[in-house]
Amino acid sequence: MENKEISQAVIGRLPRYFRYLGELKDQGIERISSQELSDIMDVTASQIRQDFNNFGGFGQQGYGYKVEYLYEEIGKILGLDKTHNLIIIGAGNLGQALANYMNFERRGFLFRGIFDNDPALYGKKIREMEVKPIEEMESFVRENQIDIAVLTIPKSSAESVAKRLVDNGIKGIWNFAHVDLDVPKRIQVENVHLSDSVMKLTYNIHRYEQEEK
Amino acid sequence: MENKEISQAVIGRLPRYFRYLGELKDQGIERISSQELSDIMDVTASQIRQDFNNFGGFGQQGYGYKVEYLYEEIGKILGLDKTHNLIIIGAGNLGQALANYMNFERRGFLFRGIFDNDPALYGKKIREMEVKPIEEMESFVRENQIDIAVLTIPKSSAESVAKRLVDNGIKGIWNFAHVDLDVPKRIQVENVHLSDSVMKLTYNIHRYEQEEK
Repeated sequence: MENKEISQAVIGRLPRYFRYLGELKDQGIERISSQELSDIMDVTASQIRQDFNNFGGFGQQGYGYKVEYLYEEIGKILGLDKTHNLIIIGAGNLGQALANYMNFERRGFLFRGIFDNDPALYGKKIREMEVKPIEEMESFVRENQIDIAVLTIPKSSAESVAKRLVDNGIKGIWNFAHVDLDVPKRIQVENVHLSDSVMKLTYNIHRYEQEEK
Repeated sequence: MENKEISQAVIGRLPRYFRYLGELKDQGIERISSQELSDIMDVTASQIRQDFNNFGGFGQQGYGYKVEYLYEEIGKILGLDKTHNLIIIGAGNLGQALANYMNFERRGFLFRGIFDNDPALYGKKIREMEVKPIEEMESFVRENQIDIAVLTIPKSSAESVAKRLVDNGIKGIWNFAHVDLDVPKRIQVENVHLSDSVMKLTYNIHRYEQEEK
């Protein structure tokens, strides 16, 4: 793969390409032109070509892209040909929802454990997995080569839990806590700030209403 | 408010400003310069000033911004001074998690109901609210001036449910279904594609590992 820096904007679009290509593949479609893909995805064909050129272009234009090949290649770029050991910190509603949502095992995400600091939850089974005390988190991360931790805990404890994870070798954090984590640059963080997202929605609703007036 | 078009990138940053300002306010801080805000938020001071200038600038530079005023003003821009009637479609784990997560009532989000198509869930109480059959959704939206619907249903039904919501007057959709909805331009949609997000994380993990090699 090229070593040139690829913008986070391009990277942010890759999973969407992957999703659409997966659907095309499931529909048995073998080839697609950038124009056809553009029509389905509502982005310009030139944007698509430009994005793909960051990765060498993925083959003949005009002739169209091979759907399955493109799907596989983008999957590899996204690291989905590897497996990832993943734990969830916080066995509340959101943690449970994500554990159950993780039928993405076929994408290589292996759900290895779920931790909480509430003794009432210890031993509770979530997808065949007993909730463990958070005190066991550090050794578990080390001994099971955990790559990714999903944080669904309040922001008050998120920062200190993140530090403990980092100290024990975590590579990435999928952060649902309502705070921007301060971790070393080598640790990859992807934030899902739910209330930021819903506020963007209310902004756009009001914006539209004001324009209508 | 100005009528000029403000980019979605700027809008995407507003909730984060709002979040940090809320924390500063809670800490009793009355004034902050763009440089101090820049240090805390890890964006440049010029970016901050540029963003704020989209909305008239919010007062004296050099002298610093009044925290509470800025917090209130950004809140208004985000539409948070209004109330929003909100329903959740899909009473599975994620729907329940979001219902419980909605302590953002103080932000004006009023949780009005939760719907599902699984009879086993009808009548189940989620935050004092009984799960209703999805057949009742349309009349409920009309009769209760519902503004926002949260979709936590499989992608196979998301498109048709979205259409039914739109036909009955919904203004915005907070979409957790794994599909990009095709709705009229007047309907505001904010997507939370969880698997897109986790793939971005794996991309960055692998990218980092390749760079290290």
